[in-house]
Amino acid sequence: MTKPNLQIALDQNTLADAARIAHLAGPIVDIVEVGTILELQAGQQAIRVLREMFPDKIIASDTKCADAGSTVAQNSKDAGADLMTVIDSATIATMKSAKSVLDGIQVELYSAWNWERAKEWQKIGIEQVIYHQSRDALLAGEVWGKKDLDIVKRFVDMGFKVSVTGGLNIDTIKLFKGVPVYTFIAGRAITGQKDPAKTAQDFQNEIKKYWA
Amino acid sequence: MTKPNLQIALDQNTLADAARIAHLAGPIVDIVEVGTILELQAGQQAIRVLREMFPDKIIASDTKCADAGSTVAQNSKDAGADLMTVIDSATIATMKSAKSVLDGIQVELYSAWNWERAKEWQKIGIEQVIYHQSRDALLAGEVWGKKDLDIVKRFVDMGFKVSVTGGLNIDTIKLFKGVPVYTFIAGRAITGQKDPAKTAQDFQNEIKKYWA
Repeated sequence: MTKPNLQIALDQNTLADAARIAHLAGPIVDIVEVGTILELQAGQQAIRVLREMFPDKIIASDTKCADAGSTVAQNSKDAGADLMTVIDSATIATMKSAKSVLDGIQVELYSAWNWERAKEWQKIGIEQVIYHQSRDALLAGEVWGKKDLDIVKRFVDMGFKVSVTGGLNIDTIKLFKGVPVYTFIAGRAITGQKDPAKTAQDFQNEIKKYWA
Repeated sequence: MTKPNLQIALDQNTLADAARIAHLAGPIVDIVEVGTILELQAGQQAIRVLREMFPDKIIASDTKCADAGSTVAQNSKDAGADLMTVIDSATIATMKSAKSVLDGIQVELYSAWNWERAKEWQKIGIEQVIYHQSRDALLAGEVWGKKDLDIVKRFVDMGFKVSVTGGLNIDTIKLFKGVPVYTFIAGRAITGQKDPAKTAQDFQNEIKKYWA
């Protein structure tokens, strides 16, 4: 089974803070993400800075695009992003127009998806979804469980590359053992640590333990 | 019937371009919106600039927030926004946490809403929704019609302040005659004109014609 990617979600309030963390942990991860919070704060400059810092890494733009798909995708692409998220409740027309500009479109799953819609996404060529435990849902006490894993597996069986995110830490990686996860996305579990580089390496080691 | 507000959606790719248009048309409108595209491009600086330019206007931050409600709301508020959008597919927990920080939360209606969810929004104190013809849906040939007006009226009857947006122009305002629309949001119908100030004034005159 292919080793899942490790993606760091940079959701700092300032580009300076994000760059500090990226400078430390960026070399160790596979994908560097400009999180929505950071992008709303610092704009596309955040993508440009990370693109220049990591010319050989995959850069993700977490716009959660809901409309004006081609414009938002073009802007993300121009700034240097390889991947861009769209929200599940966006229309198919929006997703299609985003996909026409930037190939690496990922649908972020909140509360507006079902299996029929997922088939529609596939029909327009979308290959990636992000299964998402909402930060606020986690704060409200929801946790990763069998229900989540079953959903992830079903998306994988449909042929999607599935990224998982939301409240992941070193201890939760093993819950996914045996599941061909495409990418683990970790935010504060890495960025909130004293030594983000060491924590990122711990994540990579833990992932390698189960996906050799 | 109260005159609906006129809101200009600034969705330029650069803050310079948005500021140019705002300088011309801003004094005439009731609400100045930092559109999603602009905010993703220029970051919160866009809100700060428009807040300083128009200290007495309502400033809207069109984040279409899907997660991390309180952080995104705090950032919008700190930059000077009075209103902030959340996406319909956000969880109730996310909406609630946004609302706890910034009172003027508006739910933007894409494809993830129904009347039951709308009642839940009301239960947590949300008073505003934005009924939205997607730009991409409009490009795909969908237009304003009775179906849309019926939805707007039902939201109004429930007690919501309803903003309408998507492909509005001078000629479509009259379609809403008799409906207590809270706000008309116009983007390129104003920003794309040679004389944005004159067009904004034409909008205001047209609105006054039907909502005296």
